[in-house]
Amino acid sequence: MEVVTLDLGKNSYSINIGSGLLDNGPLIRNTISGNKVFVVTSETVACLYLERLEQALGGLEVDAIRLPDGEQFKNLETLERIVGELLANKHNRGTTIVALGGGVVGDVAGFAAATYQRGVDFIQIPTTLLSQVDSSVGGKTAVNHRLGKNMIGAFHQPNAVYIDIDVLKTLPPRELSAGLAEVIKHGILADVELFDWLEIHVDELLNLDEPAITHVIKRSCEIKANIVSIDETERGVRALLNLGHTFGHAIETNQGYGNWLHGEAVATGLVLAADLSMRTGRISPDDARRIRRLVEKFKLPVCPPPDMSATQFAELMKVDKKATDAGIRLVLIESIGRAVIVDDIEMSILEVTLESGDRLCEPI
Amino acid sequence: MEVVTLDLGKNSYSINIGSGLLDNGPLIRNTISGNKVFVVTSETVACLYLERLEQALGGLEVDAIRLPDGEQFKNLETLERIVGELLANKHNRGTTIVALGGGVVGDVAGFAAATYQRGVDFIQIPTTLLSQVDSSVGGKTAVNHRLGKNMIGAFHQPNAVYIDIDVLKTLPPRELSAGLAEVIKHGILADVELFDWLEIHVDELLNLDEPAITHVIKRSCEIKANIVSIDETERGVRALLNLGHTFGHAIETNQGYGNWLHGEAVATGLVLAADLSMRTGRISPDDARRIRRLVEKFKLPVCPPPDMSATQFAELMKVDKKATDAGIRLVLIESIGRAVIVDDIEMSILEVTLESGDRLCEPI
Repeated sequence: MEVVTLDLGKNSYSINIGSGLLDNGPLIRNTISGNKVFVVTSETVACLYLERLEQALGGLEVDAIRLPDGEQFKNLETLERIVGELLANKHNRGTTIVALGGGVVGDVAGFAAATYQRGVDFIQIPTTLLSQVDSSVGGKTAVNHRLGKNMIGAFHQPNAVYIDIDVLKTLPPRELSAGLAEVIKHGILADVELFDWLEIHVDELLNLDEPAITHVIKRSCEIKANIVSIDETERGVRALLNLGHTFGHAIETNQGYGNWLHGEAVATGLVLAADLSMRTGRISPDDARRIRRLVEKFKLPVCPPPDMSATQFAELMKVDKKATDAGIRLVLIESIGRAVIVDDIEMSILEVTLESGDRLCEPI
Repeated sequence: MEVVTLDLGKNSYSINIGSGLLDNGPLIRNTISGNKVFVVTSETVACLYLERLEQALGGLEVDAIRLPDGEQFKNLETLERIVGELLANKHNRGTTIVALGGGVVGDVAGFAAATYQRGVDFIQIPTTLLSQVDSSVGGKTAVNHRLGKNMIGAFHQPNAVYIDIDVLKTLPPRELSAGLAEVIKHGILADVELFDWLEIHVDELLNLDEPAITHVIKRSCEIKANIVSIDETERGVRALLNLGHTFGHAIETNQGYGNWLHGEAVATGLVLAADLSMRTGRISPDDARRIRRLVEKFKLPVCPPPDMSATQFAELMKVDKKATDAGIRLVLIESIGRAVIVDDIEMSILEVTLESGDRLCEPI
């Protein structure tokens, strides 16, 4: 088992990565202080893994809620449902909420843990690659609003994260690729060696080779843990993790949640960020092409939705959480392995990127 | 103007108490860092004071939402509405949410500030006595769930609190009394001198005599600020502030929000807590009577709802946030001026108190 520590003083916690963790009761129970547990999971994941987790938690009182699958259920109505179940089953402040599922389950379960009775303990057991390499680490929790993604949320760190790589065997290929988008992102923004490594291990990763997948999960968690430990609540450097996300969120909002997977929207966002970084003289056309090619190799979309205009993009980007009074704030690429936050994006150059969707779709 | 400081290190803030603060633009603007403000208020308060506040905030971009009056609107649906307006008016992370109203407005506006884009700045301008002496201070924010009061919330401290005592002139007498319930509570749990003082200044307070009302607001804020500064997130001593509230919340939930005012339910809760403290040998029958008499003098209810059984009380008290795995946790009175948290309430004695409702209603 590999262990990455997220150092946040008294809120520090361990991210445990390995095979068979889901059945490792003693390990998981070690981070539960009360005698009641409430598992938030999805219908699909429940069928595959809930019984095993319940067995591992033997000795504790375990209640569970199965949410319908899909980003469209990551909303306040679901929060209300979860709280209703918690109250009906008499869970008090000493309870522990466990997220067993992907990013949607983790985000809404985490927000429930952040707000139920003003905050209870929380454990993440992510079951998609995307949540394993990104959303389960760092304490961001949220639900969506009709008018914008993740607009209602809180920072609430888990007590521990358990990443069982075996569960990836049941993950649909499209979701595996979506997770790899965040791994590419981590390489681009912080680690050129990871980016280089990804370029030559595409097949191993798509085939779920165990050492390869363990390596990228661990490296992603290390990169994210390092940044979050410096800036937990995104006052500064943590914003770098949003590389590709301002474009990506605009796509998700415009297309309706769930039609584009989050990782797919981020992948296209990375291509757009690379294009804009190239047009503003930060990276070479060659590097922009390298990024686009890697995204494509992992079977991820490189072109924005054909029915989405530059104006629609710009409007949605203006209400993004990263927007300031001064204008759109974006993360751009200085070089592969180094990103930078830019506040004074020239709208005219941004528009060129947004209008160049068609060109990005051409074969390289 | 009187100023009480709540000392929470870098989250410290001032509670300003005086006449005419609502029109004091420079004072209020001093604690707003961006150029956009979003006022959450109620229909009634908006008619009386919103225009004046907007004038005081001249120079800033001010949007406002008027919520229907009543505790029944303190829910997730209202949060969703507020966030919708914030997004429609392009408020970003640099915005400041201002609560202009009573406890309901403060709680829901505060929860919106705690969760909008994972947290924005917040200012409290409480317009009821109850919110001035209690809920505007200390950073507790929440909305209700169908199955329990304040079950979804967060700790989110304001940047400042502005208490304009002039606004009490438009407050209905019933709400004035409800506010005085929390003042009595502060006397009972922390300050016997305040309790003594209240006994001989009933008329001045009910007639809104300015020095008298300023005195009890300031003293209440000092008592609360002192306790919150020691224990911001209610791991220990802050729970003392819940004196009367476990009983009170049960009444509110059973009777439907809004039928009993929060302060009225707390007032009856104080009488029940005094009764139980007497029955468990903590205070004398004389002190229990003194408490009941003071509650009565301020025109507050001393007897629980006649249609509420002891069993209904006990069931609702078990899901209270203060409940632990071990059982019902209650705040009891050691002597007037000193309270204590008790975990091992004997259910048989509690039942005697809960069944003695009728007796409590008899004239003293």
